Amino acid sequence: MKIEIDRTSGVPMTEQLVTAMEQWIRSREAHAGAKLPSIRQLAHDCDISRFPVIEAYDRLVSLGLIESRHGSGFYVSGRAHAALDRCGASDPRRAEEESNYILAQFNHPGETLKLGSGFIPEAWRDMEGVAQAVRHVARTDPGSLIDYATPLGNPALREHLQSRIAPLGIRAEASQILVTFGASQAIDLIVRYMLRAGDTMFVEDPGYYNLFGLLKLHGINVVGIPRTATGPDIEVLQSELKRHRPRAVFVNSVFHNPTGTVVAPSVAFRLLQLAHEYDFTIVEDDIYADFQAETTDRLAALDQLERVVYIGGLSKTLSSSLRIGFIAANRKAIKDLGDIKMLTSISGSQFAEAVALTMLERGAYRKFLERLRRRMTDALGATTRTLEENGWELFAPPAGGKFVWARVPHIDDSQQLVECAGACDVTIATGSYFRPHSEPSPWIRINAAYALDPRAHAFFAKARQLEPAGSEPGGHAAERALID
Amino acid sequence: MKIEIDRTSGVPMTEQLVTAMEQWIRSREAHAGAKLPSIRQLAHDCDISRFPVIEAYDRLVSLGLIESRHGSGFYVSGRAHAALDRCGASDPRRAEEESNYILAQFNHPGETLKLGSGFIPEAWRDMEGVAQAVRHVARTDPGSLIDYATPLGNPALREHLQSRIAPLGIRAEASQILVTFGASQAIDLIVRYMLRAGDTMFVEDPGYYNLFGLLKLHGINVVGIPRTATGPDIEVLQSELKRHRPRAVFVNSVFHNPTGTVVAPSVAFRLLQLAHEYDFTIVEDDIYADFQAETTDRLAALDQLERVVYIGGLSKTLSSSLRIGFIAANRKAIKDLGDIKMLTSISGSQFAEAVALTMLERGAYRKFLERLRRRMTDALGATTRTLEENGWELFAPPAGGKFVWARVPHIDDSQQLVECAGACDVTIATGSYFRPHSEPSPWIRINAAYALDPRAHAFFAKARQLEPAGSEPGGHAAERALID
Repeated sequence: MKIEIDRTSGVPMTEQLVTAMEQWIRSREAHAGAKLPSIRQLAHDCDISRFPVIEAYDRLVSLGLIESRHGSGFYVSGRAHAALDRCGASDPRRAEEESNYILAQFNHPGETLKLGSGFIPEAWRDMEGVAQAVRHVARTDPGSLIDYATPLGNPALREHLQSRIAPLGIRAEASQILVTFGASQAIDLIVRYMLRAGDTMFVEDPGYYNLFGLLKLHGINVVGIPRTATGPDIEVLQSELKRHRPRAVFVNSVFHNPTGTVVAPSVAFRLLQLAHEYDFTIVEDDIYADFQAETTDRLAALDQLERVVYIGGLSKTLSSSLRIGFIAANRKAIKDLGDIKMLTSISGSQFAEAVALTMLERGAYRKFLERLRRRMTDALGATTRTLEENGWELFAPPAGGKFVWARVPHIDDSQQLVECAGACDVTIATGSYFRPHSEPSPWIRINAAYALDPRAHAFFAKARQLEPAGSEPGGHAAERALID
Repeated sequence: MKIEIDRTSGVPMTEQLVTAMEQWIRSREAHAGAKLPSIRQLAHDCDISRFPVIEAYDRLVSLGLIESRHGSGFYVSGRAHAALDRCGASDPRRAEEESNYILAQFNHPGETLKLGSGFIPEAWRDMEGVAQAVRHVARTDPGSLIDYATPLGNPALREHLQSRIAPLGIRAEASQILVTFGASQAIDLIVRYMLRAGDTMFVEDPGYYNLFGLLKLHGINVVGIPRTATGPDIEVLQSELKRHRPRAVFVNSVFHNPTGTVVAPSVAFRLLQLAHEYDFTIVEDDIYADFQAETTDRLAALDQLERVVYIGGLSKTLSSSLRIGFIAANRKAIKDLGDIKMLTSISGSQFAEAVALTMLERGAYRKFLERLRRRMTDALGATTRTLEENGWELFAPPAGGKFVWARVPHIDDSQQLVECAGACDVTIATGSYFRPHSEPSPWIRINAAYALDPRAHAFFAKARQLEPAGSEPGGHAAERALID
């Protein structure tokens, strides 16, 4: 197998590797069971870093084209040619299948229980409340159905968002609020504003998987800082700061995805001290704020948006379809972010902004949140009890929200849990999705809103009976196979 | 004045220049009438290209801080300090004012006639049709109010879009269609997919102003190719291809913004030949397709999406608020563009996509388009007649759509027309907005939908009475002041 990487083509290296290896497998030079070069070897041969190779192998595994044998490396899968026929480049559905790949694991309706989902169930949403707001806006403000919004977003909505973060201790003028197309656009705009290809950003490990992909798309050097039960590991952060000069550090402060933990005040203070000392910006992701009944310290509240850029949104509670997120930051940053928003998308949807404002103003959202929080608290309590009764280990008692980060003590690679879940009609994702470079992980993310289902209970009970993978020497064979 | 450009700060150079010059003016070292360095001199002193300097001066002129004296250069404006007090960095409304700057000139409601608007009047839209579709979707598909869309977009909508471009001769499978958040996201995704900072893209001159800003945001080297009445000037294109290696050429093929012209078949053929010979992609912007009753040749139809990436959308006709655009391209490109879309925005609004589909399926949109086209044809005919009766020169007889690109023969800088319009309660933009590097222009863009208003007629009549600017030597004093 000879792979030539074209650095000028604009095609991501991972993509080039996957395409080249698919062609190699398709050529049938590669019989089932043929061994692939190690990650280190292939990276060396192509004169590239190991990360695109790890990503490419990961994708090929997920496509069923290759398989990892613990402790020994990667091999052409026995079903590779069948898989190629099924999802080969000639199949017009393939592009969509791949694009849907991550999302499908988390939230697409289907027959299995989406225990790893990032969302609350549709039945827990206030669908009728949103429908009422839609009808209200269509009747009273039909112009909003037609026209662009103002680039920074509906002024009344921005004032309302300002009044929502004030009780968290974040004092922002309405001119310091930018409405975005979901929190995703907020993150994207911030990355475009602050970072250039080759810059370094620190992220939490585990953390938000879509962020990792976005940063790699931008050519950002992504460095993971372990997330502890009280926030990013300050000791590791300090030592990494001696090796790198990150322009920004991303922190999901409240009900962290996937661990469900909250940044402790002392950690927040140290983070801000370090931001000052090493001159980096903190991007505070607070999209789960509305799940929280009793306020805890926000980085943005301590620092008053000097070095903190704050992200919020309504997708996790009100609606993912309206795509309403926002950024609160200092005026200079908001001005520049607004310019980038205008050049890249003109503006948001005036109608969606009007619907969101109607919901927020009517008090319907407040009542809905009260119900939702009670439901989540009950589900979270029941889930942690069930997991503990079944001998699972919790990363930390979740402070709130919907996520539990858990493992089975003697199982070192969550891929085993994924397979066990599949046998129980349960869909979860391997913990490696939540790691910056898809490193293996024994942990999985469990959405408590789905964990009361009998299929989840069957999975929890069955998983504790699993045998540890392989008896090859060393307990972390899979890990070594993947990172070497 | 001493300006230090920090290339590592991530702040755009234009921004740094504007900030530094504002500070200089604020310091009151700069008295009213003080002369600024020439563009060439400042670019040389800062060791940067002239383009950010041109942009910075342009912004300072628009802020009222400096003024250009024809043939002699730039000076601190007599009202600079008042302007600074009004819109200084301490004013929280300033960020928004600046972000709204371009949009405000074109389409914001207000007391003047928006003769330069890029949009059709609200009264010409089918507001009730959209409101009906909104109510229908809220009643029959409430889940769409809550959930993310699939990353490539609603499959039924994609099939419908496919069937809409088939009569243009573009054969695409549904898997070759990606729904986007307006045509803006389509352009942004394509730029992110195809271009890296430092790459070159050819654009039409005059052309779509937001594209120029977007490309500069990405650090793309933007080269303008003159747009003739039959498309990009092939001779200039050929000679520029000997000097540059563009990765892509942007062409607005039908009812070109701002000239209203259509690419001739022979030009389309030569463009595609050159794309093959010089290995570039053509980005075909066809967002005015629905204004056209009788089909003309599309680049994407001739080439069948091999080297052409095709952009369409519904913002110009159905609704700018729903933000529905799309890309048709080959499968590989759509797959990659879909991945970038997912990483940068997850997906679109399922609700907006469902509303758009409902409109398209019900036939309401087809009937609306028939009415709209008749209206546009009438308005365009009346406008060109009025302009000609008043001694204006048309760049070319517009083939259709809403735009007329026109000038007064003896007026060499459209800034004079902008001022004359203002005196008639008419808002237009200088032609320089439509030029890749804001070069001056004698032409202005007139939206025929607004040109039947008596204020427009008064402006057309008054403008022909204007005296040519200044009697300084040389007819193009302003041009020299700006580019030197």
